[in-house]
Amino acid sequence: MLPVAVDAVGGDKAPGEIVAGARRAVDDLGVPVLLVGPPDRIGDPLGLEVLACTEVIEMHDEPGSSVRRKKDSSLVRAAEAVRDGRASAMVSAGNTGATMASALLRMGRIKGVARPAIAIPIPVPGTTPTILLDAGANAEVQPEWLVQFAQMGATFFTTLYGGDAPRVGLLSIGEEDVKGRAQEKETNALLRDTKNVNFIGNVEGRDLMTPDVDVVVTDGFTGNVVLKTMEGEMRFVQKALIERIPSELFELLWPHLEPLVLELDPETYGGAMLLGVDGVCIISHGSSSARAITNACRVARDMVDGDLVGHLREAVAAS
Amino acid sequence: MLPVAVDAVGGDKAPGEIVAGARRAVDDLGVPVLLVGPPDRIGDPLGLEVLACTEVIEMHDEPGSSVRRKKDSSLVRAAEAVRDGRASAMVSAGNTGATMASALLRMGRIKGVARPAIAIPIPVPGTTPTILLDAGANAEVQPEWLVQFAQMGATFFTTLYGGDAPRVGLLSIGEEDVKGRAQEKETNALLRDTKNVNFIGNVEGRDLMTPDVDVVVTDGFTGNVVLKTMEGEMRFVQKALIERIPSELFELLWPHLEPLVLELDPETYGGAMLLGVDGVCIISHGSSSARAITNACRVARDMVDGDLVGHLREAVAAS
Repeated sequence: MLPVAVDAVGGDKAPGEIVAGARRAVDDLGVPVLLVGPPDRIGDPLGLEVLACTEVIEMHDEPGSSVRRKKDSSLVRAAEAVRDGRASAMVSAGNTGATMASALLRMGRIKGVARPAIAIPIPVPGTTPTILLDAGANAEVQPEWLVQFAQMGATFFTTLYGGDAPRVGLLSIGEEDVKGRAQEKETNALLRDTKNVNFIGNVEGRDLMTPDVDVVVTDGFTGNVVLKTMEGEMRFVQKALIERIPSELFELLWPHLEPLVLELDPETYGGAMLLGVDGVCIISHGSSSARAITNACRVARDMVDGDLVGHLREAVAAS
Repeated sequence: MLPVAVDAVGGDKAPGEIVAGARRAVDDLGVPVLLVGPPDRIGDPLGLEVLACTEVIEMHDEPGSSVRRKKDSSLVRAAEAVRDGRASAMVSAGNTGATMASALLRMGRIKGVARPAIAIPIPVPGTTPTILLDAGANAEVQPEWLVQFAQMGATFFTTLYGGDAPRVGLLSIGEEDVKGRAQEKETNALLRDTKNVNFIGNVEGRDLMTPDVDVVVTDGFTGNVVLKTMEGEMRFVQKALIERIPSELFELLWPHLEPLVLELDPETYGGAMLLGVDGVCIISHGSSSARAITNACRVARDMVDGDLVGHLREAVAAS
């Protein structure tokens, strides 16, 4: 397969952890990788091929203008590598907004997609994760876009985990069809009439970490707030457990807790997927370590092998 | 003081736990209580005074129409008792929508309040809770309402915990003033100009369980989704710990975990407060046990003693 283009200079732990993770993807998984970035910023590429460029979009740069201005940046070059058939997918832990903008401007949208959305797997130990989308690409949406998010989310779930009719729920504030804002009421009605989505109705925030739903659809504002609320609560719980449990007891406990902590670790899934652009684009968390990057390369490989983009095109065209 | 009117027949555990909790409020806290409900549904009132009525708004009844139709229901009568100076406050674990509607229709709004909002304390062990509002009264809002929610939430915080300038944050998807939907951008600008609110800017979901903010303002859709997400995640974590940790180890652990579990228990705070109606109205969780009802009576007493409604009136009039 064509290599996965990895933005070597994006993320809080770039380039060290990013390059190390990319190297492991090659060594442990056999996924070919192309590092993208200015050679002097990358440092030692650990023997990996480098697509050299001269600029970097920093974490604090304004996404839209920096993508237009920094044409020779790692993000723009990574997206172009996918567009030009030099790479099969791109992975970045850098500036999220600029990653989206680069992918959107350089790869373009899949025909018929109104707006790309960010899909993120929420770990549910013991079963497959719940896919939440939109996790932040579109703060404000229209009901028709949410229907496409449902189609794209279901397609992503199937490409990741198989099965043929993942259960799709609409995030609202009550299970009845009439609950929620005008946005939810209209979307609920549209989804009831959407043939290629197995719509199970409205779901609530408490359903996210249960095995009762596979894909949860909402606008990017609500999705992002939910995601960060969950992150914050999990961080709080972990901190509280460490503070309150005496260390000798904690040592006895750890062998039982460690598998759970690993299953709950978002790094297990490598990051979020930008669905709706004409190529595979993985947006890893800014704090990604080598493990997250290796897993992102694995997911990228699986999405390329599983023809995610082709299936998304069909799903959106079917309605 | 005038008694707290407790809806004896509302909630999953009514009347048993409700009456028991009310009795404890009298015995342990010296808070006078008036039970409201049909005597045959209440059963043994444990020696408490009963305001008898003939109807009950059930959990599944449609809020608006049931309040209009069931004029002799416990919820309507409890709200009238506050309006008519027979009770100082009302507490119900029954139908949330009907509790709001009864309070709104019978007590009326505080002059100048556009819309009442539900404020709920989110436990933050080691410090005061974070007050989140609106937790579900208004799925769709206007920026001006959110400004009033900020004023009311700050007043509620001060009446509960003292201090004079609680830190108020606007829930959004980034800390910068320009982040969020049109709703957040407009509200952010209005709050920057609101003199009686100590506005610290936008906050994110991950700040809710930290000591960094005292009051978090959002619309009732987002607030309700956030609340239920947190509930679901906490339930998930508790279940996972119980399942994964061998019982003999769990017994050693429990003395260290129990104080944390109690601090995190929403029953510690007795329920949510409906802010903006002309009286004290506490909406307890449908699953409330006696402990929650006792605590709700305590909070009701504190809010009456602290003249919450008078302070809310001043806060809203000041702008």
